[in-house]
Amino acid sequence: MFINECLNIKNGHLNIGGVDTLDLAAEFGTPIYVMDEQTIRKNCRVYTEAVKKYAPNSGMVLFASKALSFKGIYKIVAEENLGSDIVSSGELYTAISAGFPIERAYFHGNNKTYSDIKFGIDNKIGCFVVDNMEELDAINQIAAKKQKILLRITPGIDAHTHKAVRTGNVDSKFGTPIATGQAIEIAKYALSLPNIELAGLHCHIGSQILEYEPFILAADIMTRFIAEIKKITGYEIRELNLGGGYGVRYIEEHIGIDFDTCIKIMCDTVVKNCKENDLQIPYLIFEPGRSIVANAGITLYTIGSVKEITGFKNYVSVDGGMPDNPRYALYGSVYEAEVCGRADEPKNFECTLAGRCCESGDFIAENIKVQSCRCGDILAVLTTGAYNYSMASNYNRIPRPPIIMIKDGKPYIAVERESFEDLIKNDK
Amino acid sequence: MFINECLNIKNGHLNIGGVDTLDLAAEFGTPIYVMDEQTIRKNCRVYTEAVKKYAPNSGMVLFASKALSFKGIYKIVAEENLGSDIVSSGELYTAISAGFPIERAYFHGNNKTYSDIKFGIDNKIGCFVVDNMEELDAINQIAAKKQKILLRITPGIDAHTHKAVRTGNVDSKFGTPIATGQAIEIAKYALSLPNIELAGLHCHIGSQILEYEPFILAADIMTRFIAEIKKITGYEIRELNLGGGYGVRYIEEHIGIDFDTCIKIMCDTVVKNCKENDLQIPYLIFEPGRSIVANAGITLYTIGSVKEITGFKNYVSVDGGMPDNPRYALYGSVYEAEVCGRADEPKNFECTLAGRCCESGDFIAENIKVQSCRCGDILAVLTTGAYNYSMASNYNRIPRPPIIMIKDGKPYIAVERESFEDLIKNDK
Repeated sequence: MFINECLNIKNGHLNIGGVDTLDLAAEFGTPIYVMDEQTIRKNCRVYTEAVKKYAPNSGMVLFASKALSFKGIYKIVAEENLGSDIVSSGELYTAISAGFPIERAYFHGNNKTYSDIKFGIDNKIGCFVVDNMEELDAINQIAAKKQKILLRITPGIDAHTHKAVRTGNVDSKFGTPIATGQAIEIAKYALSLPNIELAGLHCHIGSQILEYEPFILAADIMTRFIAEIKKITGYEIRELNLGGGYGVRYIEEHIGIDFDTCIKIMCDTVVKNCKENDLQIPYLIFEPGRSIVANAGITLYTIGSVKEITGFKNYVSVDGGMPDNPRYALYGSVYEAEVCGRADEPKNFECTLAGRCCESGDFIAENIKVQSCRCGDILAVLTTGAYNYSMASNYNRIPRPPIIMIKDGKPYIAVERESFEDLIKNDK
Repeated sequence: MFINECLNIKNGHLNIGGVDTLDLAAEFGTPIYVMDEQTIRKNCRVYTEAVKKYAPNSGMVLFASKALSFKGIYKIVAEENLGSDIVSSGELYTAISAGFPIERAYFHGNNKTYSDIKFGIDNKIGCFVVDNMEELDAINQIAAKKQKILLRITPGIDAHTHKAVRTGNVDSKFGTPIATGQAIEIAKYALSLPNIELAGLHCHIGSQILEYEPFILAADIMTRFIAEIKKITGYEIRELNLGGGYGVRYIEEHIGIDFDTCIKIMCDTVVKNCKENDLQIPYLIFEPGRSIVANAGITLYTIGSVKEITGFKNYVSVDGGMPDNPRYALYGSVYEAEVCGRADEPKNFECTLAGRCCESGDFIAENIKVQSCRCGDILAVLTTGAYNYSMASNYNRIPRPPIIMIKDGKPYIAVERESFEDLIKNDK
C-alpha cells in the first residue's frame, strides 16, 4: 500500500518498522524524525551487492553523508561496509567522533578551506576529491607526502532534474569541464605536483535523477576521458568515482529507478569502453546518499489549526515546517502524508500542509489529499529521511527535532531534541 | 557611495562602523556576520519618532525578531523603547534570557502549540496575536484570567512582493479573512469567551514591500473593519497593529521607501477613517523587522577558488553560502558585494558568487560585478543583517558564523561561532 516498505497499518494506525506512530508521538513528543534502521541497511546492501556483481575490478560504495549526517549514521554505514563522502570538516569531525574508518572517507567540496585540507590530512583522510587548481596547490603545499586525490570533472551532461540540484553540465560551480579543455590541463597539472597522487577521476551529474540515460552517458564520457588522459600523458587512471544522484520515489506518481540496474549499466558501460580503449578496468566508486536514507524516514507532527477558507482552500497547520523540512520552500518538493490515527480511512480531504513559521512560503506540501483531520491529530509526512535533518535550521528560533531510530521493533534516540538552552548557548 | 550608511572606504579598504573589515576578518576569522549597532539604533528611532509624530492616540513599535533573534538584539531594541514581535517559545525564551520586558512582547504565529500558549501565559506575555479558532479556545482554556489578545485578520491585499513572503491576501495560511465573513465571526466568538480580552486587531500584508499603496489600503480596510465590528457588536476596538513588511534596498537599483512616510500615511488613513466613522483613534502598532537590521549587517567571507569556465561564466567560491545565507536559494534574492581590500577599485569582474556547499543551487548572487579578486581575498556581501543569521542552518555540517557587533568604533562578540563540538552535542 505504501511506496515505503517500512510502513504499514495496524488497527488503523500508521506503523513504522513495526512500531505504532501514535506511541512514538506520545513517548517522544512532536515534531520528530523517525527512521527505520533496517531500511537503511537494506538500501546499503542493494548498492554493495551490485558493486560486487558488476564491478569486475572491485569497487566501493560511499554514503553521501550530506543527505543525513549525525554520529549514528556513520556507525551504521560503516557496519554495512560503506565508505563515506564527506563535504566539510564538520562532517569529518562527526565521522571521526563516531569511530568511522577515515581511510574510507572521501573529502568533497567546491571550496575546501585551508583548515579543511589541513584537518583532512591531519586525520589521514582516505582521499580528496579535488575541485580546482587552488585546491590542488593547497593540498600539494600542506601534505608532507603523496596525498591520494581524485579530480572532479564536469562531463557536460544536463540531467533532467531541478535546476538547484543539477551539477554535471559545463556551466557549473563544481569541478573542471572536459568540453573546454580545462579538465585535461588540471590533470596534467596534478601529475606534475610532487605531493599529489592522482588516483582517479570523479563526476556527479546531479541529484534526484529518475532516468537511466544520464548515468550511462556519464560513465561513457568519463571512461573516454580516462583514455584521453592516457593518450596525452601516458598515465592511466586506476579509480573512477561516478558519484550519486539516484532519485527516489516521494509520491505514488513518481516512476522510480532500480538502483541495482543503475550500477549495472554504469559498470557495463565502463567495461565496454575500457575494452575498446585498451584500458584496465578501474576500481569503481558510487555515492548514493538520498537513496540510502530518504525512504527510511518519516516526520511526525501534531496538527494545530484546520482552516477552511471559504471559496479558496483548506490549510492544515502543523507544529513544524520549513525549519525541519525546507525542501518545499527551496525546490517545491512533493510529499505524501498520512493522518496516523486514521491511516486506513480514505484520503478525501484536500489541503495545503502549512508549517508554523511566520513566513507564507512555509509549506510542507500544497494541495495534497489526507484523511479527515482536526486539531490534536498526529500527521506523518513520508520519505523525509534525506535532506531534512541535514538542512534543518532554527528559523523562528525553533529547536530542531530529535531523530528516533527504530531497530528490531524498538525505538531509540539517535539525536536528542534541541533545548531552548541550546538555542542561546552561543549568545553573549 | 554605498546604499548603506555604515559603510565607507578608508585606504582602499571597506570599513563598517569605522572599523576596517580586513582587521575584522583577521581577528575573528571568516565567515562572520558583522553588524553596526548605531545603524540598528538609528533605524529604531525612525519608527519610534514617526509614531510619536503621527499616532494621535499614541502607539508602539515592535521589533519583528524573526528577522534576527539572539539575546543581544532584544537588549538593544528594549533600550530604544521598542516592544517585540515574537513567533515561538524559542524567541520568547531568548527575549526572557536577555531581560526583555515581556509585557511589551506580542506572540504571533499561525500555529502556536499548547505549550507555546502555556509558556507565554506563564511568563506574562503582553499579548497574543490570535490566528484562528483553535488558538482562541486554547488561550481561553489555559488562561486563569482575562488574557489580552489581538485577532489576526487578512485584509485581502495582494502586495507586489515575492510569493513566498506575501501574507495579506485572502488565500493565506495566516489569520481570518474579512472577505469571506469569517473575520466577523471570529471577532464575535472572541467577545463571547470569558478569559479573552479582545483589545484589537492585527494584519500583516507581506514582506519586503517597496511601495506605499498596499500600506494605505491595509490601514483603510482595517479601520473600516473596526467600524463594522462596532456596528454589529457594539464593541469598539482600541488597538490596531498594522504589521510590518517595509522593504529595504538590497541593491542600488532598488527604489527604497521612506519609513517615516509609511508610518505617516498609515496613521493619516486611520485618523481620517475614524473621524468618518465616529471611532476613537486606536493605539497604533507597527512591526518593522527587516528594515531595523538588514542594512546594519554585512557578511565577510574568504574567497577560495576563482573559476573561469571558458565561454560560460566565472565562479567565485566563498567559505560560506546557503547555510549562513539561504535567501538566494529560497527567493533568488539579490545582493551587492565588495572585495574588501580593493573597495576603491572599479567593479569590472562579472561573476557568480558560489557558496561552499555540495549543492548546485548554493549561490549568494548570480552575475554580479565585483572588483578583481583571487584566492585568499576577503569579500563582503552587503545588507545581510536580516534573515541571514535567523535562517542559518548547519547544512553540510557547517558551523554557524558568529555575529560581531560594532559599537563606538570597536567590535564585540554578540554571538560566538559554533564549534564542531556544538554540532554533535545532541548526537548519541
